Amino acid sequence: MLGSTHGTLTSDLRARVVACGDRPVNAVHEAAGPAASAGDLDVSGRPLYAPVPDLDRFFRPSSVAVVGASDTEGRPGTGITRQLVDWAARVGARLHPVHPTRTSVFGLDCVPSVADLPGRVDLAVLLVGDPLPLIPQLGEAKVPFAVAFASGFAETGEQGAAAQARLAAAVERSGVRLLGPNTNLNAFESFRDDLEGPAIALITQSGHQGRPVFTMQELGVRLSHWAPTGNEADLETADFISYFAERPEVGAIACYVEGLKDGRSFLLAADRAARRGVPVVAVKVGRTDAGARTAASHTGKLTGSDQVVDAAMRQFGVIRVDGLDELQDTAALLARARRPVADGVAVYSISGGTGAHFADLATAAGLRLPRLGDARQAELHQWIPPYLNVSNPIDNGGHPVGDRRGRKIIDSILADPEVGVLICPITGPFPPMSDRLAQDLVDAAETTDKLVCVVWGSPVGTEAAYRDTLLGSSRVATFRTFANCITAVRAHLSHHRFTDRYLSPFDEAPRTPSPSYRKAQELMRPGEQLSEHAAKQLLRAYGIRVPREQLVTSAAASVRAAALVGYPVVMKASAPQLAHKTELGLVKIGLTSASQVRDSYRELTDIARYEGVDLDGVLVCQMVERGVEMVVGVAQDDLFGPTVTVGLGGVLVEVLHDTAVRVPPFGEDQARDMLGELRGRALLEGVRGGPPVDVDALVEVVLRVQRMALELGGQLAELDVNPLMVLPRGQGAVALDALAVCR
Amino acid sequence: MLGSTHGTLTSDLRARVVACGDRPVNAVHEAAGPAASAGDLDVSGRPLYAPVPDLDRFFRPSSVAVVGASDTEGRPGTGITRQLVDWAARVGARLHPVHPTRTSVFGLDCVPSVADLPGRVDLAVLLVGDPLPLIPQLGEAKVPFAVAFASGFAETGEQGAAAQARLAAAVERSGVRLLGPNTNLNAFESFRDDLEGPAIALITQSGHQGRPVFTMQELGVRLSHWAPTGNEADLETADFISYFAERPEVGAIACYVEGLKDGRSFLLAADRAARRGVPVVAVKVGRTDAGARTAASHTGKLTGSDQVVDAAMRQFGVIRVDGLDELQDTAALLARARRPVADGVAVYSISGGTGAHFADLATAAGLRLPRLGDARQAELHQWIPPYLNVSNPIDNGGHPVGDRRGRKIIDSILADPEVGVLICPITGPFPPMSDRLAQDLVDAAETTDKLVCVVWGSPVGTEAAYRDTLLGSSRVATFRTFANCITAVRAHLSHHRFTDRYLSPFDEAPRTPSPSYRKAQELMRPGEQLSEHAAKQLLRAYGIRVPREQLVTSAAASVRAAALVGYPVVMKASAPQLAHKTELGLVKIGLTSASQVRDSYRELTDIARYEGVDLDGVLVCQMVERGVEMVVGVAQDDLFGPTVTVGLGGVLVEVLHDTAVRVPPFGEDQARDMLGELRGRALLEGVRGGPPVDVDALVEVVLRVQRMALELGGQLAELDVNPLMVLPRGQGAVALDALAVCR
Repeated sequence: MLGSTHGTLTSDLRARVVACGDRPVNAVHEAAGPAASAGDLDVSGRPLYAPVPDLDRFFRPSSVAVVGASDTEGRPGTGITRQLVDWAARVGARLHPVHPTRTSVFGLDCVPSVADLPGRVDLAVLLVGDPLPLIPQLGEAKVPFAVAFASGFAETGEQGAAAQARLAAAVERSGVRLLGPNTNLNAFESFRDDLEGPAIALITQSGHQGRPVFTMQELGVRLSHWAPTGNEADLETADFISYFAERPEVGAIACYVEGLKDGRSFLLAADRAARRGVPVVAVKVGRTDAGARTAASHTGKLTGSDQVVDAAMRQFGVIRVDGLDELQDTAALLARARRPVADGVAVYSISGGTGAHFADLATAAGLRLPRLGDARQAELHQWIPPYLNVSNPIDNGGHPVGDRRGRKIIDSILADPEVGVLICPITGPFPPMSDRLAQDLVDAAETTDKLVCVVWGSPVGTEAAYRDTLLGSSRVATFRTFANCITAVRAHLSHHRFTDRYLSPFDEAPRTPSPSYRKAQELMRPGEQLSEHAAKQLLRAYGIRVPREQLVTSAAASVRAAALVGYPVVMKASAPQLAHKTELGLVKIGLTSASQVRDSYRELTDIARYEGVDLDGVLVCQMVERGVEMVVGVAQDDLFGPTVTVGLGGVLVEVLHDTAVRVPPFGEDQARDMLGELRGRALLEGVRGGPPVDVDALVEVVLRVQRMALELGGQLAELDVNPLMVLPRGQGAVALDALAVCR
Repeated sequence: MLGSTHGTLTSDLRARVVACGDRPVNAVHEAAGPAASAGDLDVSGRPLYAPVPDLDRFFRPSSVAVVGASDTEGRPGTGITRQLVDWAARVGARLHPVHPTRTSVFGLDCVPSVADLPGRVDLAVLLVGDPLPLIPQLGEAKVPFAVAFASGFAETGEQGAAAQARLAAAVERSGVRLLGPNTNLNAFESFRDDLEGPAIALITQSGHQGRPVFTMQELGVRLSHWAPTGNEADLETADFISYFAERPEVGAIACYVEGLKDGRSFLLAADRAARRGVPVVAVKVGRTDAGARTAASHTGKLTGSDQVVDAAMRQFGVIRVDGLDELQDTAALLARARRPVADGVAVYSISGGTGAHFADLATAAGLRLPRLGDARQAELHQWIPPYLNVSNPIDNGGHPVGDRRGRKIIDSILADPEVGVLICPITGPFPPMSDRLAQDLVDAAETTDKLVCVVWGSPVGTEAAYRDTLLGSSRVATFRTFANCITAVRAHLSHHRFTDRYLSPFDEAPRTPSPSYRKAQELMRPGEQLSEHAAKQLLRAYGIRVPREQLVTSAAASVRAAALVGYPVVMKASAPQLAHKTELGLVKIGLTSASQVRDSYRELTDIARYEGVDLDGVLVCQMVERGVEMVVGVAQDDLFGPTVTVGLGGVLVEVLHDTAVRVPPFGEDQARDMLGELRGRALLEGVRGGPPVDVDALVEVVLRVQRMALELGGQLAELDVNPLMVLPRGQGAVALDALAVCR
């Protein structure tokens, strides 16, 4: 009965992986699993559903109150009031200045208080130092949205954080939705309305950091919204992601995030975007402690451990980039590019060197450059001299300018079924050749569903071929560096690969406790570290195999236990709060006889007495050899709650910290991906002629530990299965030791 | 006598590390060691000195012959001839068309052959399909330089490579120095001569790949030379590096390299640049096999294993970058920036978010952002509101535009002795604030020796603040992305750190064989793999400690040997060509008695007989425990010859390939740096409470293995010391097994 307990949890724990074929993405998602809806909670009591705030009236208000409006030169609110007056005139909104003593502002009638506002008002812009007293008034006046400019809240320290908490509480009571405090009017800047096609929607915690994406409109990239979230006392990044994911005009969501307000809401919003197939591209500050500290002081948010943030984003398909330039280029491509018809990349260049260089970087980044077939190459050699390489990269030795050959080359490459993306790096302006090349690419792009990318490598950027021809085309994606083109194309291809197979883990997340949960409850000891034996019983409750073992309290019993367990045996002292057993000499391995067992029992109890360890007994355990040692555990993250970690045991985890982490809920595919992330993953395939290990059993353990994290998350401060011995394929995995700390 | 042989080689092998203080760099280099000179060879017969070709007449010819000149529209040479005519008119050079049948070309008198050229000619431009027959004629006419345009050589395959070899041989006989074949006229393009200060000199194997750096002249960056080296039948990248390193106007050398012609000449040229303190920045294609293959087909060069290329470049201070944009930005900064006065970086921004983001990326890249002192912060708070963070990054909450406060803030930061570099990221244009900020930065930069960098983050780049104010200043380094600014500043600081402590390893390289060499000669067996015993004797000859051991050929002798060696012992079968001893059962460890030794002898010889292994005996060895297993070895690289590798033994080297490599000659500092590159380096400092190991002894072994590589490089195909057991500090390192293959 002890030991082998391969079980029945699997089907609950696994996210079903459905082959999607070529059905439309959303249809697949809606068909899969029991879709979550508002009010649904998982077994830990956390929501399974992100509410979508209706922000239409916020972004397109027809009537706006400006509280604290001013037209006196030199007063702080005057500039902003003027900006709003101009904006209202441009979009045709009604503006209502509110000021206790003025009768008109910039020629508009002024009312003394919020209560005096005429008719329906969609949005109140609060230019006052302390917005708190206004919130109940706005609630009574049924104003649905407010923007608070005031600073001095969580970004300034403890006192400010307390003020922000009071503001948040008032907002919640009032029914008003608040943007800010510590924000601005970026949402009401002047957007170009002459651009067509899918747009970028922008969310930034810092206004200045959104400026470059906003400025891309001058390069012809459409922007539909800008949400400058500031301190996020109420409306947060996640709310805007959810809202934008449902807007038909939004092709991609670009975010600049310093700290996340709540890990769960962010993941639920990212899940919504993933279900809808809307890409989310994000800069998230906090790669280093220095960045994290400064970011915290700037926005007053929690900054989660970066490895966890990174994993969580990848789980839900959020594309993380480092630079604002990458954010611009990646979001612009993902917003505008059509669905890829193939993942092969063809590189076409007017120089073999350029092709070689680009191919080198692209391949290193994981893009696939298929070798073109012989027939295709023969066709290309009709127009390209025979001594030039056209296998891919395709070197034309100088794009033909005098006739239609250049266009024929491009069309031929685009006609290849292996090719989904054509990239032409033009490193320097070299007219007339580069002009004609740009025009041929723009013309060809109009006739194909495939993605055409150009890198305009000139550092100047005022050339007509770039500014008029390339930027003038909405069908060609134009970049300035090889690196940004490669980053964006890779993100585009992986976004579609990801959403094609995406099944929301929230649909599969357990809503009710498993039978294991009740057994586990009997073992939990709040605030204590469990003994090894108790921790292993906890694992057994969740169907994780442990060695045959018995806890004994006498030498005679240890000999009887050894006979039952089977020689050779391992003996270990067992006690709550006991760590570093090996270093203390409290582990004896490879015992092969009754006399060795009897002696070892005495020795272990003697050492324990000498060290002052209060034993609950001695464990006599089956000895397990010949496997790969792994570590699987649960830890608590400030932002995301319980997380599941897996790593290679021994020196790899101790010295190299070679671990992968995930935020529950996640499916079997993610558990397998975790193993793929380990640098030492080759160990699982067998080394020095050893057999491959039982990866399926390892994945099963990871999923069972996830179930523990989900069900016991609130009660379990830490869990470490170390080592988990993963045996050769087909033989399972055994938890040789475990450490569990209750909360 | 066996075993401990810590020796006397050390002082020969170590590059002296001299503290440089603030003496001028070149003076230090000239004072250090026995400088190499032309004709000097190291112990392996390889040169220690890079000749510097005198290329003045090549780059500034006063008289040029154009062989194959044409002015007939539509003929291949006509465009190039016209370009040369224009160039000659611009720089005042005489042009001599050469054509068998024409009498004049573009109005210039034409001579029928090279022999008919009048007076001294500096350069012949060869526009003919096959330049080979012309070479002897040029030699006779004493024309010192030629440029060959023709393609169809090594870039096209074996036949072309043979033609190129014939061309190279003819060139060598003639005394002419040839650029090309497969090159162009980039060296004679129109350079701006109105720019001042240190210039970039450019070397590219592909003309198109040099275009962006060339184009930087339009942004005010001075370019002094462009060498498009093509196939490098004669003149190669290394020749141009050596020449440029000696030119006073050159501030930095920028290279685009597809394949190196010869590893040694490249390193000698890089060494010359390092001695002169001239930075070399290079894109080297070949990160991946795909890139390497294409590059080979493009230039017909060897592409060395990338890890070796990477290490070799770092050893000699060559700054490797991936993108042409990084090449531009890094070379421009290194050419123009003055010597850093401190390595602290201050980040000044008009938004806390921008500062946090930049600080995060900069810190992750290894830049140091010192916290400003309290007095400095108090000073800054005279002009910056108290609730903003000015510890560094410095957030001004919006640069003051109405008065001198903005300038005072900048001056105050620059006055801080901890700060050597001020970086101001301006993510978006936000006039008038961004205009005034740019102007204040430009003005402040004029008054300081410190480095002032600006990132102009707008994707548009036509703004006056960028194009006129920032690019108009030669004192401000302007970038377009955070990443490129960080890459360039890091390269700038590390270049100076590197050259300050640089001592050429060629000065210290052995020129005559050591006494070890003669002993080693007796052990070498050309074409054979040595037995373990012989390989260990080879190590002992070079002063590397091996366990006490005896080779025996009878059971009785094995018992006597065990008594001499001391119990416990290890016994191993010994034979040439023997690998996988452990897997075959040919190793017995932990033998503690005469009877065990006698039994083991019989067992080993029985197995060997069964396996058909022809033993030269059985090794009875001292058993060594309690250390960290390392691997040290010698391998042959196609491009660089013998290389030295060090790695962590066991699973780290087998699964993670956690190794570091160096190309000899290198000094002790590089041997220590190798250990620092290992991901598992923490193992050397002791794990699980273990003691730190004897790193000095490990470094000593690496240097002794280097000596073997240098002296025996031509005879030793492979050497593997695996494992080298590195004992706790003060106790040395012992080679427990070794594999040596003779050439």
